[in-house]
Amino acid sequence: MISCHRLLRALPAFALMLWGGAAAADPVADIVAKALADGWSYQFLSDLTTEIGPRMAGSPAARQAAEWAKIRLQQAGFDEVHLESFPVTNWTRGAESAEIIMPSRQHLAVAALGQSVATPAAGIDAQIVLFKSFQALLDMPPGSLNGKIAVVTQRQVRTQSGSGYGAIVGMRVTGASEAAKRGAVAYLIRSVGTDNHRLPHTGVMSYAKDAPRIPAAALSNPDADQLERLIAKGPVSLHLNLASESKENAQAVTVVGEIRGREHPEQVVLLSGHLDSWDLGTGAIDDGAGIAIAAGAARVIAGLQQRPKRTIRVVMFGAEEIGAASKAYAEAQGAKAANIAIAGESDFGARKIYQASLPNAVAGTAFGKQLAAALLPLGVDLEKTPARHGGSDLEDLAEGGVPFVQFDQNGSDYFDIHHTADDTFDKIDAGELAQNVAVWASFAWLAADSDVDFGRLPSGTGSRR
Amino acid sequence: MISCHRLLRALPAFALMLWGGAAAADPVADIVAKALADGWSYQFLSDLTTEIGPRMAGSPAARQAAEWAKIRLQQAGFDEVHLESFPVTNWTRGAESAEIIMPSRQHLAVAALGQSVATPAAGIDAQIVLFKSFQALLDMPPGSLNGKIAVVTQRQVRTQSGSGYGAIVGMRVTGASEAAKRGAVAYLIRSVGTDNHRLPHTGVMSYAKDAPRIPAAALSNPDADQLERLIAKGPVSLHLNLASESKENAQAVTVVGEIRGREHPEQVVLLSGHLDSWDLGTGAIDDGAGIAIAAGAARVIAGLQQRPKRTIRVVMFGAEEIGAASKAYAEAQGAKAANIAIAGESDFGARKIYQASLPNAVAGTAFGKQLAAALLPLGVDLEKTPARHGGSDLEDLAEGGVPFVQFDQNGSDYFDIHHTADDTFDKIDAGELAQNVAVWASFAWLAADSDVDFGRLPSGTGSRR
Repeated sequence: MISCHRLLRALPAFALMLWGGAAAADPVADIVAKALADGWSYQFLSDLTTEIGPRMAGSPAARQAAEWAKIRLQQAGFDEVHLESFPVTNWTRGAESAEIIMPSRQHLAVAALGQSVATPAAGIDAQIVLFKSFQALLDMPPGSLNGKIAVVTQRQVRTQSGSGYGAIVGMRVTGASEAAKRGAVAYLIRSVGTDNHRLPHTGVMSYAKDAPRIPAAALSNPDADQLERLIAKGPVSLHLNLASESKENAQAVTVVGEIRGREHPEQVVLLSGHLDSWDLGTGAIDDGAGIAIAAGAARVIAGLQQRPKRTIRVVMFGAEEIGAASKAYAEAQGAKAANIAIAGESDFGARKIYQASLPNAVAGTAFGKQLAAALLPLGVDLEKTPARHGGSDLEDLAEGGVPFVQFDQNGSDYFDIHHTADDTFDKIDAGELAQNVAVWASFAWLAADSDVDFGRLPSGTGSRR
Repeated sequence: MISCHRLLRALPAFALMLWGGAAAADPVADIVAKALADGWSYQFLSDLTTEIGPRMAGSPAARQAAEWAKIRLQQAGFDEVHLESFPVTNWTRGAESAEIIMPSRQHLAVAALGQSVATPAAGIDAQIVLFKSFQALLDMPPGSLNGKIAVVTQRQVRTQSGSGYGAIVGMRVTGASEAAKRGAVAYLIRSVGTDNHRLPHTGVMSYAKDAPRIPAAALSNPDADQLERLIAKGPVSLHLNLASESKENAQAVTVVGEIRGREHPEQVVLLSGHLDSWDLGTGAIDDGAGIAIAAGAARVIAGLQQRPKRTIRVVMFGAEEIGAASKAYAEAQGAKAANIAIAGESDFGARKIYQASLPNAVAGTAFGKQLAAALLPLGVDLEKTPARHGGSDLEDLAEGGVPFVQFDQNGSDYFDIHHTADDTFDKIDAGELAQNVAVWASFAWLAADSDVDFGRLPSGTGSRR
């Protein structure tokens, strides 16, 4: 029996032992500490954007990036890594220029929208008709834009969630055909973006079957302002020249790496992002960051003493920007998609995550409480409402019932850079990136080292953002 | 005799009369109120940058801008407006491009430096030698860069005063010849600028007589970062293509407008800025803002009931960016420069003025106290140290003894935009611009409606910033 005095002296050591025991029993705290101190994701992103640069779906650079990423995942301790190819149309930007030719000659900063046809080699010279909202163009009758260049200068609203994008992106995707149906010979939009730099925002568009295919491009925001001011003074004519090309039957490449589960290797917790990028920048925030986060999170777990019960699969989708990877992956998975316990995609830059949401089946359960406790020290609130959007590349899996987790990042400045030449590595904050890795790694561990049932989604859940 | 009751009722009207009388007796308060409420300078700047756009010294657009500005000053109530021409070399940018060709192909954002020669039509392909400081290049021996493209990636430091610019601009102005002396075939610099956008900063350079003339261009800051990361991994080769041209014996045009003094019309208070701009943007902060401020300040005074004692002269210099206006104007003035009581130039954007300084002769005098009292409500401190820099276009006048006033604007973000495509009207804050107009108008009135002697400067005062 020890004296009271000696017991009191021993207390701090005893408390420390308890604490140490608690730490060892709390692998999430260990994972968070490792993720926050780990520079792997930051270096991965630096090297990808530096050594490879832009990587359009179906391009030689995208294949090179996939081979490169495969080696990186092998080196990072993944149990299995492979590539999955699927056919896409490879669109390439050519020389492009626009200038005001009346009332005075001035250069305009433009970028062709992805999938746009070229202008005739001599370009197009025409007067503009300018609409300050997309709806104003839609309100015009057929023939009302005959021979004109239609210009829409509606502005994207800046929000933390990025909701301003979804509210306006239709003018980019469908606008050219709407303008063509009304007789326009070309279509220009104010960039879908929130900055005021002379760097236009590209992005995918598509043509309706019942309209002529006219060239389509984005003006930088200051150039759209300039046209608004000029048209208020009188008629404005532009010269537009786009030399883009499309190549059918190119191959896009998705990279898949797995940390194999120790008890239920067939059950999968899927973390993802997309490897392809637009051509103007080097795809740092969109979406080199997302794959760096997903892979970095899995790598932290690969470095633990034992594998989780379930498999953690990292997927670097090969054709998000042209909307082709989601369907291709879901089709390739087929019935195996039933093995995906839950999926998530990081595709909104590298700013801090501020809130999370789970599928309905686990909201409010012990799993939810466990995740909420893990995320709180990282500054993340777990929402009571169920996850609404899992990521563009998970749409078709979700349609097929695969539940998803949603981590909302601060997107206040995401659309300053998105789809522009400015999407480069210097825009990444190492600390904010590491917070993302810590959140995803915590979630991945808790989801994979458990038997929790995330349920299946009802059909129609995978609605696009 | 009126009753006490009636007196009390009359008091507010009496106080109002006193207040009205005080306002009438303080023309500076009246000037400030008018300047702050006046949208003329903002509209002038909007219209100049919208209707004319870029205006390189010696170009047709610059002449058009001068004719346009002349009409605006006439409409604004100036007593006399005229144009003064002088010969310059008109340099024009052609197509320009650069790309990394080894280790992987990547586009680089570049802009030829002003006055740079073109590359051969097929461009230049060469390995780079990268220096993180200009001094490191200067330390290299002759022949050490034979056949190479020299790249200097020193960074400009961001400061409120803009002092980081002067500390580094030598690498832009003199670097090409220094590289050529050491055998380089082309010269690239990190943009002299503080932003991280893919928009390179142009600016003037010059060739030494004892070195081959090699092409010179600026990389955007993110592109310079990219080369720094790449060169750390191994050899890097670039392709560079510049197609600039120079035309001798073009004519630059300076615009001069006067508000004639009522007592000493021959004595001049000179307010200025420069009308010419670089070609990439529309010259909003550099220096449409300066001429809008100078002209707007004089216009407020032109709208008063009576002219000041001395003449207020507004000069919109026609060739600041290529360093040609200062000497041309001083030579054209000749002995008449003795009539310039004091001069000032606004050429640092449109952010608020935070401090002012006067020539030594009046620092601490009654005039200084009067000006200090006028500027304090506008948030401007009058410094006790004498003015050190009057503006690039006033250098030769200062060399000849003309004293100058100095108003320091917050330049914290000036070099984010300076000399880039981003120098457009949307960057202007109307309220900050109006504060500038109020400060300059207050100074102009106090200096012009007085007999104060600002002295003459000793030779050598006009040292360049």
